[in-house]
Amino acid sequence: MTRVQLKRKIANRILNGHPWIFANEVEKWDGDAKAGDIVDVYFSDGKFAGKGYFNAQSQIIIRLLTTEKKVVIDDEFYLNRIKECWEYRKQIGYTENCRLVFGEADGLPQLIIDKFNDYFVIQTLALGIDTWKPAIVKALDAIFKPKGIFERNDVPVRELEGLPQQKGFLSSPFDTKIIINENGLKFHVDIENGQKTGYFLDQQDNRRAIQHIVKGAEVLGAFTYTGTFEIHAAHYGAKSVLGLDISENAVQQANKNAQLNGLENLVQFQTANAFDVLKQWSKEDKRYDVVMLDPPAFTKSRATIQKAITGYKEINLRGMKLIKPGGFLVTSSCTNLVQPELFLQVIDMAAKDARRKIRQVTFQTQSSDHPIVWNMENTHYLKFLIVQVL
Amino acid sequence: MTRVQLKRKIANRILNGHPWIFANEVEKWDGDAKAGDIVDVYFSDGKFAGKGYFNAQSQIIIRLLTTEKKVVIDDEFYLNRIKECWEYRKQIGYTENCRLVFGEADGLPQLIIDKFNDYFVIQTLALGIDTWKPAIVKALDAIFKPKGIFERNDVPVRELEGLPQQKGFLSSPFDTKIIINENGLKFHVDIENGQKTGYFLDQQDNRRAIQHIVKGAEVLGAFTYTGTFEIHAAHYGAKSVLGLDISENAVQQANKNAQLNGLENLVQFQTANAFDVLKQWSKEDKRYDVVMLDPPAFTKSRATIQKAITGYKEINLRGMKLIKPGGFLVTSSCTNLVQPELFLQVIDMAAKDARRKIRQVTFQTQSSDHPIVWNMENTHYLKFLIVQVL
Repeated sequence: MTRVQLKRKIANRILNGHPWIFANEVEKWDGDAKAGDIVDVYFSDGKFAGKGYFNAQSQIIIRLLTTEKKVVIDDEFYLNRIKECWEYRKQIGYTENCRLVFGEADGLPQLIIDKFNDYFVIQTLALGIDTWKPAIVKALDAIFKPKGIFERNDVPVRELEGLPQQKGFLSSPFDTKIIINENGLKFHVDIENGQKTGYFLDQQDNRRAIQHIVKGAEVLGAFTYTGTFEIHAAHYGAKSVLGLDISENAVQQANKNAQLNGLENLVQFQTANAFDVLKQWSKEDKRYDVVMLDPPAFTKSRATIQKAITGYKEINLRGMKLIKPGGFLVTSSCTNLVQPELFLQVIDMAAKDARRKIRQVTFQTQSSDHPIVWNMENTHYLKFLIVQVL
Repeated sequence: MTRVQLKRKIANRILNGHPWIFANEVEKWDGDAKAGDIVDVYFSDGKFAGKGYFNAQSQIIIRLLTTEKKVVIDDEFYLNRIKECWEYRKQIGYTENCRLVFGEADGLPQLIIDKFNDYFVIQTLALGIDTWKPAIVKALDAIFKPKGIFERNDVPVRELEGLPQQKGFLSSPFDTKIIINENGLKFHVDIENGQKTGYFLDQQDNRRAIQHIVKGAEVLGAFTYTGTFEIHAAHYGAKSVLGLDISENAVQQANKNAQLNGLENLVQFQTANAFDVLKQWSKEDKRYDVVMLDPPAFTKSRATIQKAITGYKEINLRGMKLIKPGGFLVTSSCTNLVQPELFLQVIDMAAKDARRKIRQVTFQTQSSDHPIVWNMENTHYLKFLIVQVL
């Protein structure tokens, strides 16, 4: 086993239990560790730091899997850890659908597994975890006897690890267009071609949070994607719902979902650029009781956070202007680069520019099947806010 | 009408719409405004700032009721504003019980009204709002036809305003021991002698948040007061629940509540000092699946925040030590002096000292019938956190 020694001056991050070790934090290593190998890591004073997978090609040279010396990294390790992940999800009330493994927050860095009833979608985003794909599939087979397992590794970040972008079956082939149940509704999930793993489970609890405010309301939703928030609004008693998305394909999917729930007369979807349309409608004095915004991240790098801030501010400002006095804004942000405090500041600025007073009704994160570890900033990424707009 | 002119250099607070004006922010006033009078307030450049009630005896010399010049402060003003408050609560799903008026956050500074089905409990915490008590009672009569209205003005803060501490009927006398429904359970509320307004409505949504984690669990609750969290735990399927409170009277009330719900065999209550007992039991290797802490504020002034921090840290540390690996800590803080970020830091420190790793499951505020206005720090006071303790 290769032995890696950390520099004396390492980041507090590592001391506080964060599993990432950057190349410039390593003093030296013995042996000829190959990319993907498990290595033993020691602090400069000789104390054991943990075991993790190694990749000299990545900026993050090691990702720790355990801090306990006696733990052996083998198939059983993955079986046990995934069992613990499932145990946690059951304890907090998730059964049919959940994020079963949330990478670093579950002690399995760069591994994502989403469970859609009997189907599982996997992402292995670093070489050292990709190597263990057979063990992971074996564990899922043992615990769940799945109807199907699919790999959605068509993610650019894999290239930083020298891994190809790919997707395909990790079980016998199956029909990748499935239907899931959520909050008493049904949704089509396209495991092969949907965004990310096919469906955004991280908003599943937040979708319930609109239950009361949409009753009898005229609702506008932007960045609707496959229409989940809008269909929830109709289900919870909205008078009318209009959803907008720039993608014609998304709008088609959203219409299919409305039909699946027999709500196609209440919910309409339109292909439109939300930035343009919201501005236009504000000028035309169109007004809604509830406006819901679930925009994309607007940025993927720290260098362009300002771009994201500008985007969030602008769309929220435009959304607020369309809300009748006393109505509600439902707004999300899904990038960890804009942390909660900053997000609230952006909404506050938007309100000032829109000359509207606001009151916080609800402020939530992603659902609890994506637990948050405080010293791992990227585990807290989703902000979900409802404000009343006076 | 007395005209008050603000100094040129006033706090951003006022410019941002905060309703408090301190004595040292006032340049001068014309006329002979008496304590409790409504006055017109102007910025130094002559622009209208708002109308509010005046009390030269208070450090906060004016509290604004409106920023609109055309609004008249009369009985109808209170009727309309309380109607709006009720409209908001209904919109967000509260019907039987709610905080109907949450002071500054509802544009009615220092007025608190809690609705317990057909009964109303009022606090008027400043002279300028106390003056309007007849108008407020009239408004409640008109909107709700209440079975009873009670004043719980036995609050020391009234003395800063030159007001006496008092409690009593504002309607025909009625039996002040009532029963309310919450989350499918029943609770005794002692309107006359319970803490604050008789019952803590601010945790009503948070009590539902323990629903899944307590299933089949051995649960310990400290600072149980009248046992609401503990009785919820039993209702949601806990294997056993033990609640602790230092007050024998609270324990008696808690037992009555358990009986009221037929859960007296599942839930036990003990009179005990939680600080001592938790430490003792930790040494004795007692362990629980879930520990719930809902302590008092520990401080009421900025000068002694450190005392509060020490208290929160100590009790959470002791609580964590009693939790089985993989179990849950449910913990609250009800003072706005410890803001959310600081509270999380305190819990993080407690975890480090207890040598336990934690993951955030849920982080919430007071329920939405107590809306939060971002530039009014005291409207965001309750923090409710669930962490898994590994």
